[in-house]
Amino acid sequence: MYDLIIIGTGPGGYEAIMTALRMKLNIAIVEKGKLGGNCLNRACIPAKYYWSGAHFLEKSSKADNYGIDLQIKDVSFSKAKKGKDRAIGFLRKSFAQLIKAKKVPVYKGKGTVIDKNRVKVLKEDGSEEVIEGKYILIATGSVPSSVGGIVPDGEHILTTEDFMENLQQLPENLVVIGGGVAGCEIAYISALYGAKVTVIEIKDRLLPIPSVPQEVSKLLQRKFKKHGIDFKLGVYVKEYKIENGKVRFILSDGTEVSADKALLSVGRKPNTSDIDTVGLEKDERGFLKVNEYLQTSIENIYACGDVVNSPMLAHVASYEARIAIKNMFSEKKEKVDYSVLPWAIFTAFEIAHVGLSEDEAKEKGYETVSGYYPFTYNEKAVDELESDGFVRLVFDKKTGQILGGTVVGIEASELIHIVAYALKNKMTATQMHEFIYFHPSLSEIFLFATYDVAVGKLF
Amino acid sequence: MYDLIIIGTGPGGYEAIMTALRMKLNIAIVEKGKLGGNCLNRACIPAKYYWSGAHFLEKSSKADNYGIDLQIKDVSFSKAKKGKDRAIGFLRKSFAQLIKAKKVPVYKGKGTVIDKNRVKVLKEDGSEEVIEGKYILIATGSVPSSVGGIVPDGEHILTTEDFMENLQQLPENLVVIGGGVAGCEIAYISALYGAKVTVIEIKDRLLPIPSVPQEVSKLLQRKFKKHGIDFKLGVYVKEYKIENGKVRFILSDGTEVSADKALLSVGRKPNTSDIDTVGLEKDERGFLKVNEYLQTSIENIYACGDVVNSPMLAHVASYEARIAIKNMFSEKKEKVDYSVLPWAIFTAFEIAHVGLSEDEAKEKGYETVSGYYPFTYNEKAVDELESDGFVRLVFDKKTGQILGGTVVGIEASELIHIVAYALKNKMTATQMHEFIYFHPSLSEIFLFATYDVAVGKLF
Repeated sequence: MYDLIIIGTGPGGYEAIMTALRMKLNIAIVEKGKLGGNCLNRACIPAKYYWSGAHFLEKSSKADNYGIDLQIKDVSFSKAKKGKDRAIGFLRKSFAQLIKAKKVPVYKGKGTVIDKNRVKVLKEDGSEEVIEGKYILIATGSVPSSVGGIVPDGEHILTTEDFMENLQQLPENLVVIGGGVAGCEIAYISALYGAKVTVIEIKDRLLPIPSVPQEVSKLLQRKFKKHGIDFKLGVYVKEYKIENGKVRFILSDGTEVSADKALLSVGRKPNTSDIDTVGLEKDERGFLKVNEYLQTSIENIYACGDVVNSPMLAHVASYEARIAIKNMFSEKKEKVDYSVLPWAIFTAFEIAHVGLSEDEAKEKGYETVSGYYPFTYNEKAVDELESDGFVRLVFDKKTGQILGGTVVGIEASELIHIVAYALKNKMTATQMHEFIYFHPSLSEIFLFATYDVAVGKLF
Repeated sequence: MYDLIIIGTGPGGYEAIMTALRMKLNIAIVEKGKLGGNCLNRACIPAKYYWSGAHFLEKSSKADNYGIDLQIKDVSFSKAKKGKDRAIGFLRKSFAQLIKAKKVPVYKGKGTVIDKNRVKVLKEDGSEEVIEGKYILIATGSVPSSVGGIVPDGEHILTTEDFMENLQQLPENLVVIGGGVAGCEIAYISALYGAKVTVIEIKDRLLPIPSVPQEVSKLLQRKFKKHGIDFKLGVYVKEYKIENGKVRFILSDGTEVSADKALLSVGRKPNTSDIDTVGLEKDERGFLKVNEYLQTSIENIYACGDVVNSPMLAHVASYEARIAIKNMFSEKKEKVDYSVLPWAIFTAFEIAHVGLSEDEAKEKGYETVSGYYPFTYNEKAVDELESDGFVRLVFDKKTGQILGGTVVGIEASELIHIVAYALKNKMTATQMHEFIYFHPSLSEIFLFATYDVAVGKLF
């Protein structure tokens, strides 16, 4: 009997393996697809690869400022895909080599929990094998959702996974259904790589997420226009047809839009179908119910990541995996705590956030003061020719303690960790202000964004 | 009588102005050159501008991985200089506009403290004006040093300031005297912009700085070779001649090297000549003596930055300026504290450090454990095609608390602030490990570099 069976090797499963191996546990892995799951093979990692290429292209257009006269002779998504496949191939191979070096058995197939200690693995050839473990971790992730009867076919209507894993050639025209995180990321990438893109969003703004401020949506909409990305807000798809190799959408406002391909990016749902025959409790949306220790309704079976009802983010999965493994094998159990959870979006620029927004803080009864600073005057951002964007920090007026922050612009997805560390350590505006930041650095933006609160206003 | 007279507008003076204005003080500024001092006009900021161009060029050579076929038709340092002048012009103008908006008087000329409340300003036209202040802050910075009788002439033998502010055209051949921070930065920039560069360093390695590990110098030496940068270690200039428009150096090992121009980068010395006629105490190297509150030997006269004997870094100057201004006008004085002082070097890659190295920690009597992780397997670094480099963290074995860290590679100069915040808050390896980092981010390197200490070793 294994100490632990891990079903799924995405960010949750990966982290569980890393932690378990370092705890010298005797583990087995069940994986029906490629090692690394969605995140590595068809979501975060390919997305950031393509984004890096798109961002490099954008930067190229400013290279004359550096005295560099360059000519872009060709931009090829299919060549970028080859590069992406190499990068991901390297990472997947490193993962496989580690597993091999540690002699961890990998059961290739679909895992189903058949009793509290047993997992049945249904292999591709139809054969079955049953393995036993003291503990089981379910980390099978999620699958793309659909809306309005739109059926992805991998050919004309793509999921984000189709786009990230398999798409060989960009279509000339692309319609993106859904102006959320994945939709805005793929719209930006596709436009920079040469497609004519139209985004359809049912809400009245791009990135209609409560913690993304209105001003950021507006800035994004301006940038999208600059990049020639069309978007239609406040409309949805009423019906669609595939005719002569094109997809034609009839929208709720009566207008039509057609394209060579469409991308459906309207969220994801937990991958829990056939996950068990033991009656693990699920909610009405299919998420496995877990307690604060990440135990399912059977106490030695834990779950983490997109199969449980917490934010659907890769790093939440890996965090939960670490907690779950420790809770299985430690005397004292630890509760999950999402209070300091940084996240980031990559589209025409980076957007990152942690903690409470000013509105959320006020709703919770805080009297707030806030600090703001644009990258406009940050010397490093100016040197990098990327001085769009800003930081906004929210503080508790009474204690001066930081409650949250948003960073928009260059390296936001890294800089947000400085705010997150401040939040974790309950730092005040004054402590953040009195800190010594390297000059010139983007991080100095926190020195300047805390001036108002720590010292006084300039005007 | 002004509340405060600030002499010099480099990073120390700038920060003093910002702080004083927010404290609603009535201030005057004395500046003999351009607003922004050395840092903005002829050091940090132009250096990072050129570095960004050089780094972009290096990245361009990998663009085919992103499916981008580009041709570099021309690389022109003189056009880069125009871009640099625009960027710095913008920043200097913003500074000037702020001063104007706040109606701060600027006395253009060389300031000399003539009694405890009076500064004489010697203007360019030879006229003099005396102004009075309750407090005086001396922030006049530093000037380049020389060695071995080498005399910069602005034509064949340049200082780093000549290079950064005025150089219109790169020479075909450049000899860099001094393989320290500025020398290695300029060598990299010049090589990428097309010069044939030779670095002469008296010590046995490039970047011969105690807190730069040997392994980093070795990595840099390999990179320099790859970029065609020649370097001669363990030698110094015995004599030199300027003949037929070339500089010819005879080195201590008997060999010769000649070039169109030479760059002298052997450190800096405090700019304190004629700073006062009131007998402010100085040490034997010319630094103004200050106490822990940054008061000189006359208690209402403070000094900050390169004129005092603390690390010669722009951000130390601005930190000291903030402390000095507060100490002048607050009831309770604060002592300077350099224990959490991040710094970074930009050359063929970024190098950043904060706190104690493992050797330094051991010397101080700590039993240490360390964490290491290479960028090789960091997904974001792989996506960015920049997976050289690593992080090393040093912890106190007894308490688990972080003592210091080094980051080498992509965005090291930003990532070091995460380590610095951890150090300031006395975080342990376990706390750093249990933190939620965004995925994929470079910052996740801290999750992985703390695994050994927080959970256990993999092998």
